[in-house]
Parts: sequence; C-alpha cells; structure tokens
Amino acid sequence: MYRTNTCGELNINNVGQTVTLCGWLQRSRDLGGMTFIDLRDRYGITQLAFNMETNAELCEKARRLGREYVLQAVGTVIERSSKNSKIPTGEIEIEVRELNILNESKTPPFTIEDSSDGGDDLRMKYRYLDIRRNPVRCNLELRHRMAMLVRNYLSNQDFLEIETPMLIKSTPEGARDFVVPSRMNPGEFYALPQSPQQYKQLLMVAGMDRYFQIVRCFRDEDLRADRQPEFTQIDCEMSFAEQEDVLDMFEGLAKHLFKEVKDLDFGAFPRMTWHEAMRLYGSDKPDIRFGMQFVELNDVAQGRGFSLFDGAELVVGINAEGCADYTRKQLDALTDFVKRPQVGAGGLVYVKYNADGSFKSSVDKFFDQNALHAVADKFGAKPGDLMLILCGPAMKTRVQLCSLRLEMGGRLGLRRPDQFAPLWVIDFPLLEWDEETQRFYAMHHPFTAPKPEDEALLDQPDRWGDIRANAYDIVINGVEVGGGSIRIHDRVLQNKMFHALGFSDEKAYEQFGFLLDAFSYGAPPHAGLAFGFDRLCSLFGGADSIRDFIAFPKNNSGRDVMSCSPAPISQQQLDELNICVKQ
Amino acid sequence: MYRTNTCGELNINNVGQTVTLCGWLQRSRDLGGMTFIDLRDRYGITQLAFNMETNAELCEKARRLGREYVLQAVGTVIERSSKNSKIPTGEIEIEVRELNILNESKTPPFTIEDSSDGGDDLRMKYRYLDIRRNPVRCNLELRHRMAMLVRNYLSNQDFLEIETPMLIKSTPEGARDFVVPSRMNPGEFYALPQSPQQYKQLLMVAGMDRYFQIVRCFRDEDLRADRQPEFTQIDCEMSFAEQEDVLDMFEGLAKHLFKEVKDLDFGAFPRMTWHEAMRLYGSDKPDIRFGMQFVELNDVAQGRGFSLFDGAELVVGINAEGCADYTRKQLDALTDFVKRPQVGAGGLVYVKYNADGSFKSSVDKFFDQNALHAVADKFGAKPGDLMLILCGPAMKTRVQLCSLRLEMGGRLGLRRPDQFAPLWVIDFPLLEWDEETQRFYAMHHPFTAPKPEDEALLDQPDRWGDIRANAYDIVINGVEVGGGSIRIHDRVLQNKMFHALGFSDEKAYEQFGFLLDAFSYGAPPHAGLAFGFDRLCSLFGGADSIRDFIAFPKNNSGRDVMSCSPAPISQQQLDELNICVKQ
Repeated sequence: MYRTNTCGELNINNVGQTVTLCGWLQRSRDLGGMTFIDLRDRYGITQLAFNMETNAELCEKARRLGREYVLQAVGTVIERSSKNSKIPTGEIEIEVRELNILNESKTPPFTIEDSSDGGDDLRMKYRYLDIRRNPVRCNLELRHRMAMLVRNYLSNQDFLEIETPMLIKSTPEGARDFVVPSRMNPGEFYALPQSPQQYKQLLMVAGMDRYFQIVRCFRDEDLRADRQPEFTQIDCEMSFAEQEDVLDMFEGLAKHLFKEVKDLDFGAFPRMTWHEAMRLYGSDKPDIRFGMQFVELNDVAQGRGFSLFDGAELVVGINAEGCADYTRKQLDALTDFVKRPQVGAGGLVYVKYNADGSFKSSVDKFFDQNALHAVADKFGAKPGDLMLILCGPAMKTRVQLCSLRLEMGGRLGLRRPDQFAPLWVIDFPLLEWDEETQRFYAMHHPFTAPKPEDEALLDQPDRWGDIRANAYDIVINGVEVGGGSIRIHDRVLQNKMFHALGFSDEKAYEQFGFLLDAFSYGAPPHAGLAFGFDRLCSLFGGADSIRDFIAFPKNNSGRDVMSCSPAPISQQQLDELNICVKQ
Repeated sequence: MYRTNTCGELNINNVGQTVTLCGWLQRSRDLGGMTFIDLRDRYGITQLAFNMETNAELCEKARRLGREYVLQAVGTVIERSSKNSKIPTGEIEIEVRELNILNESKTPPFTIEDSSDGGDDLRMKYRYLDIRRNPVRCNLELRHRMAMLVRNYLSNQDFLEIETPMLIKSTPEGARDFVVPSRMNPGEFYALPQSPQQYKQLLMVAGMDRYFQIVRCFRDEDLRADRQPEFTQIDCEMSFAEQEDVLDMFEGLAKHLFKEVKDLDFGAFPRMTWHEAMRLYGSDKPDIRFGMQFVELNDVAQGRGFSLFDGAELVVGINAEGCADYTRKQLDALTDFVKRPQVGAGGLVYVKYNADGSFKSSVDKFFDQNALHAVADKFGAKPGDLMLILCGPAMKTRVQLCSLRLEMGGRLGLRRPDQFAPLWVIDFPLLEWDEETQRFYAMHHPFTAPKPEDEALLDQPDRWGDIRANAYDIVINGVEVGGGSIRIHDRVLQNKMFHALGFSDEKAYEQFGFLLDAFSYGAPPHAGLAFGFDRLCSLFGGADSIRDFIAFPKNNSGRDVMSCSPAPISQQQLDELNICVKQ
C-alpha cells in the first residue's frame, strides 16, 4: 500500500510512530513559520505540519500545492499544540519529512465542503467531486450499511437472494418498459424489468420458499421530481405465508434497521385500512408523525344556508391547534395554498376559536356563535385553535385537505426528519376505475388476491370497485416505502381477475402464459413485498430527495449530465440491431 | 403460516408433537393397509403416513393425489418402524389426521428427481420445475451463500458496495453493447454496462477508497457454449494500492471462500508470469492440478533429418507418465484429437519409453535409441512413460499442445472437480496485435497501466507488443475466474495509451471524456479486479456449466425459452421510442 494508515485513525496513542498517509489536500494554511495541510480521505482528516525552520525546502513545496492535490506524506505522529476536539485525529498532527505528489488537480469547480457552493447542475456534472463531500459520502456509506443489514437479516430468516434476469419479455400492462433490441433475433426485443414480479412468483412455484433480491428495476415514465428511470428494490416473496406472516416478517426487518441504524425501538406498528386512511388523512400514505385527523362536518355544517357547504358531498376539516392567532395575511396564504392548481380547492373556510372563547370565521354570515361552537365540538377544539374546512366531492376534497394538513404540519414543525412514524396501510381496493380508458386496473398488479370474503364479488361486475385486496403498504412519515400482497395461486381465480381487467383469455395467455402454465404445476400459496430501497435510504438519511443516495443519478430528463448519456449510436450499431431511427 | 415446521427439521426429539407441514408430493406408496407420501419442500422430505384401518377416508383421499400436488398435512410426529438413515427426518413420520390440497398439479413433463428424465430444452422451458430438483436448488443455495460470504468479507475490509448505473453511455471499444432507446431523448440510446469499469474508477477519483459490487453485466456477443448475454461480476476497486496489495486482498477472499464453502486451507497461491504460463502450459489460464509441463526440444529434436522438426520454429512436448502401454488405437485417437479443426495440429509424434528401457517412436526412422534417450532425458521421463510431441510456429503449437495436455489430463483422471489449484497469472502483455484490423488492442482494457519499467516503450511503436502490463488473472483449475490491473491514473500516460490504441485525441475524448476530465481533478493511484461470479459458483459447485448456477438462464441464441423472450413489441411502443424495425 501507498500508506500505513488512513487519515481517520491516528490519535494520541500513536504519538512517536512513523506513518505514511495518502489523501487529498482539503485545506492549507500558511502561518509564516509553519504551514499546515489538512489531508482528507474517506476515513477522516489528519493535519500535516511543515516547519520553515527545520525544513524550508519541504515547507516551500507544501505551500505550492493546490486544493485536491493527491498527496503521500511520510512523517512522525506528534501531539498538537492547539488541539481540535471536533475530529478524532484532532489531538495529533504529522511532522512531515517526505512529501510526494501522487497527482495534481485542477481547481475544482466548487468547494469540497459540507455546504458546497456548487449548484445542482454543477454537482451532477462533476459527481465524482461531489461524492468527495461528507454529506454525499455518508449517504452512500449509509446505503451500503443498510443493504448489508437487510441481506444479513433476510438471510438469517432463510431467505435466499436469487438473481433474476434483466433481459426479459415486455409486458405492456403497467408502466412503460425500457426495451432492448436483440441483434441475434432481428425484429425482437427484450424488456428491462419494472420489477422481478413474475420471476419471484415462479421461484415460489419452483419451491424456493423464501426469496429476496436487492435489485435494479426500470420504468420508462415521464419523470416527476425525484423519480429515477432506474431504481432499486428490496424484492421479497415467501411461500405458505398469510398476510399476518408477511407483515410480521417485514415489520421485523424495518425494526431491525431502525434499531441498528437509528438506535430506535418500536412496538407493533399501527395498522389502518385504506378506507380509514382516506377518511382520516385523505391519503393512502398518511404521515402520522402528527395528528390533525380529518373531521367530517356534514351534520353541523349543512343546512345553514351556506350554499357551498349545502351543495357539497362532503364538508371536512382539520384543527390546527394553537393557531387561532393567525393573521389575515397568514390565512390568505393558506387560501392561496389550497387554490393552487396542484391542490385545486375552490376556497378555504376558517373558524378561529379565540382565546376568550369567542369564534371568528369566514362564514360568520351563516354561522352564529352557537353553530360555530357545534363545529368546534366536532373537532374537539379548544380556545386558541384554528379550524380549516374544505368542501366538495368527497374523495377529491379529502385529497385537497391532505395537502393542507401536510402544509400545516410543515408550518408547525410537526414533520421532524429525525422522528419516525411507521404504519401499515391494509385492505387496499383490488381494482381501480380509470375514467380515461373506461376500464378497471389492478391497484397493485394483476396477481394480487382479493380478500377471501370479497372473492364472490368478482362475479358481480357492478361491485368490482368494492372488492378489497389482501394488499398492504408500509408507510413511514407519509412516504410509501414498501408494498405487497397475497398472490393469487389458483388458476381459476386468476382467470376471473384477468376478466375483470378486460383481458381476453388469449391476451392474458400471450402476456403471462408462462406464469399461468407454471401455476398449473402446483403453485403454493405465496405472498410478497417490495421496499423502495432508494427511498428507504433517503428516509433513514433524513433527506427528502433520493438523488443524493444514488451514486450516479439521472436528471429529470433521464440524462446523466456527467457522461452525456443517452447519446446517438453509430449507424453500424443500428444496422447490426436491424433498427433505424425515425427522422 | 400455513405450517408449523418445514419438511427438513423434524426428528426423533419431536415425537409426540402435533405439527402442520406443507409441501409437494414427491412420491406416494400404497402398501394396502398403509399409504405413505413423501412430502417435499426446500428444506427436506418428511414421510406422511395414512392408515387404512384407522382412517379409511383420509387414506383413500391420499391415494388419489398426484405427483407435485401441494399439500398441507396436520398430524402427530411418530417414530418410524422402518427407519431411513439417509435423511435427517428418516427416523420419524407424521401420522396424518387432516390433509388439505392447497393446489393440484398437472403431471410434470419430467420427473423431479436428482437425475431427471428431462432433456436440456425441456428443463429450460419448465425451469420452475427444474429448480425443484435438488441439484439445481443446491446450486442456487450455494450461489446465495457465496454472495453473502463475499459481501461480508469485503465489507469487513472496508469495501463499500456502491450501485452503479445500468443505463450508461455506449462505448464502441471492446465487445458489442446492448443498447436501450431513450423515449425522452429521441434518436439517443443508453447502453447496458459490459462492466462498471469507468464508474468504479470514478468512485476512486471520488475518494470512496474501496468499492465493490456484485453486479449484472451485459455483452452482446455471438454466444459460444456456456456464455450468457447477461452475467454477474464481483467487481472491485481500491485506491492507494499496489499490485501486491490487490493480489493479497483477493487471494484472501478466495481463501475465505475455500475455507467456508469447502473447508479447504491453502498456503500462498502460486504465481506465474504470462510468458511462463504460455511457455510451460500454452495457456494464460493453466490447469495446474496436474504437472505435465511443456518441454521444449529444439536442441535434441532438430538436425536429425526429420524435416517437420527441422523446419519448425518450436518442437515441444509433454510426458504422459505411465502411458507407454498405449495401444496403436489409443495413439491414433490422440493423433485424431490434435488434428481436429478445433485443435489444428498437423500431426503427433510419440516416443514410448518401454518398461524394458528401450524406446519406440513414430520417428524411429530419424531417431536412434540414443537420440530418443536424449529426448527422454529432456523430459525427465522414466521407463513406462509416453512422450507426445508437436511442432510448428511457437505460439500456435503451444496452444495446440495445451489442448492435448488437457485431454491427457482428462483421460488420466488428473482433473478432479473436487480438487482445487488456484494460481495467479501476472505480467500480461499490455497490447495485443490484431491481424484482421491491423492494430493493437488493449489486452485487458484501455485503462490498464504498463509496468513502470516498460513505460518508456510506449514511445517506441515497434516495441508496443513487448510492453508488459500490471495486469493479473486469478485462475482456478484452468478457468479464469477473475482478472484485473493497476489503472493508469496519470492523464499523460493515458493519452499515450490511447495513441497506441489508435484513438485520436478527439475520439478518445468523445468516448471517455468524462473519465479523462475526472482524472484531471486528483485521481488517486488505484487498481482493481473482477471475478466472474457465475463461473466462480460453478467451479465451487464442481460443475462445468454455469447455466445451472443461474436461476433463469438463456440459451445459445440468447433466448429465454420459458418466457419466449425476446419477442416483437407493439407498433405503439416502437412509435413512442421513435425507432422502426427494418424489413
């Protein structure tokens, strides 16, 4: 090795030792008689000391070095005169007697500091410099650690990691596939997997009993903020398991991660049905770090002559505790917030429960103090609180109120990144109606099993929307970090499901034939779950964006600005692949 | 869970317990008064017992079940009357009192036995049934175990597993890329990585110090036997490391695997230069489980009037110990072997060292007993040995003799799959001349560093073929399981290398620009290695083919016959991707 030690490990116990260190020049300070260099590697920073008096030549050499030069320094560990208690190596420095420049560096386009002066675009273009910064490095270290924890945990639970193919068959159901032209089979294409769903089910048919894989998946979607065309899943499946077993197993995994990474202990994760989550939070992934549950007000709000309320399917609100002193300006801002196209509400009704016990609202014309008191009672509000009310079509209004609730939670500091509130959302609807294409879609995927007590409804097309699935999501802090379901292992039931999804037998067989064939050779009951690993890491890292938990992410146009990818390919490549680009 | 126990864990200590087991019907035997079913899951086999006398109805039910039915059985663990010492559960059976059919099965197209009656094609089409067979299941379990061992070992050595992108930029240098059309960037393409080479070097520039990844790679080659278009590498890179450090580190990993998986201990792995390997074995991946090293015979073989020898650049042979009694027929078979087009020799000369001390050869006309004795002395042969000799252009003849040596090793049972002979081959040539395109190619890849003492030769084009690289392969039993090199971290040297490879500055920058840019911001000295993980697993599994160590492999046309992939895609998909298929 070029070094005897890393830049993070020497301390007062090493004083007197001769060492060789390698690293990057983080910072240098010329104090006249002395020059100090902070030498940085992945493990830490160690101070190199050069003395003008004892070795002028070497000191001069040290002074000429620029930021991010790669250096090798040989010297003796000595105790520092002015110690730095903030870093583990802060009590010592290296009295350097030999200094080698292993590589020079141009001046980096931004500083390699925790708070960099590089904007997002610059950081992405020079990602290899960005990763040198502590925050990004720590994220990647966290990701490695979490992957190791997950693998060892699942392996100890008899799960086998089995690699499934990346070059698979395109199945138009679901999101758009990335495809790969086959040179050896002209006119034919592979697809990159959106998930190993079918393969993991085949592995259950194959008797592998418990499977997992930390696996790259691909989705050719129009990228919204913080979506990546390639992403990583912790993909799991187990045989002979019921819903309770799956929830237990992966709640165990989540608790293990919380304990090991965050030193946090949790009791049983709360569970909530999808309907309850929608009713109380207007979301299938409620952030339960804070309360502010929805209160439905039709009985106290309607029949008072306020036509917006009277004509609404649902009047519903939240109680912002202690916010009765909100100013006109603050209330206007909230109204503006709910009227934004992203939220889409027509307006906002407020009711202030003043400290003196009186009420003030934006609907005083229709609601006298008694009527407002009745509203406040529904909320369980107390003097000092502010009630915020929306109305309209039930589901739409709930979703709007969800935005307002999260906004208020944010304003009130109730969404702390260092607090974790996990939750299971269960009993999702099996099928979801799509207005545009006028058909039902599988809410999870076509292999999700209905709840046994709802199975009969598959024979009643008018009730399809009411069928509940044995499907579940794990939600942490309002983020869906994982989801899964009990799978259909019975061919007859699977056929009914395809029928509900509008697949002819032929079309179903064309797309999923090999899976259906497999099911006729003794498929065991099985169930699974997949975590979004990028998201899980960012959550544990206390960040909103997944991008800094991916070493080389793509931007919102699916481009890697560092390598300038994608890019045109040569005519020869196109010819070999038997394809052409449309002009 | 549908079960209380697996089919592999109950034994005499569980007698009297009530248990519920799930699994597949492996075999059923109707003995009149009793019916026995072998119930199989991933963990083992447990015998279910049904008694006609005590429960005729249940026994009748059991008799009607077919192979591979999925069953759930509730009953009591009892001691068997006739024990089976071959399986861990062989002392007990389950007296069944409740039997549920969880799923039926069609009769499988081949038997689910260690030696199946399914041919390769059938096994691949029904891979989910094939995996139920012990040998395939064990291979996948071994693969999981080896991946865990590798990850934990490297993680303990401060390597971080960092995921690199799968959608990258196409670089025409090297093998053919699989490409992925970008819908959002019409006319542009991603490539799937042939290896994460550039990204792992960028991670070194990024200061990550030690990186690894068990990662899928892709190569669109015409598939030879036992090549897969997608394959898995253990990809590693480390900074501030010299060749010795890399060899030490990964020799340590290999030893760890041998110890944990095979309980084998090794001393230091032998090392051999590429030139030595070619001279002694005619191969850069010699199988050193057996000796039979090449002996060069020009001095004793030439000048005797045998024109084939006299005109040859090299006369070289091997000594097959104890084979002097080979018959005419056996010798003819060996001659036929070397004359096969795959080997390509013109003929074979033999010299028998008879037990009585006399010699018999196919060149007796030119070689008297004394001359043959001189040949035998070169070989260090003793009575009873058989010397086999080829001649011709040096390198070509060595490669031919390599085939013969391996053939003889096979015939003599010297290539035992349960014996392991690891070896480092070092000092590979940096550049390799290609007759067809009349240019040099990088033997490893364009970032491999020359040996410092050979660096100056880069300025002498006529000496380019002599430059040795700081490159190394790890070879086990004649299989190259891994390889790597010290990388060039100096931009000037890298430019010289590109020059030798015939790249203009523009072309080099176009293809590798971001890497070259990165190198100008303080690239540390670094080096790496990648293991072929599929191959490593098959070697540890004692098998020749990698296919059964991959859950869902493709055939030699790159097809997955189970899912019928690749396949045509819809016109809509083509249109969205802005490409068309040539007619």
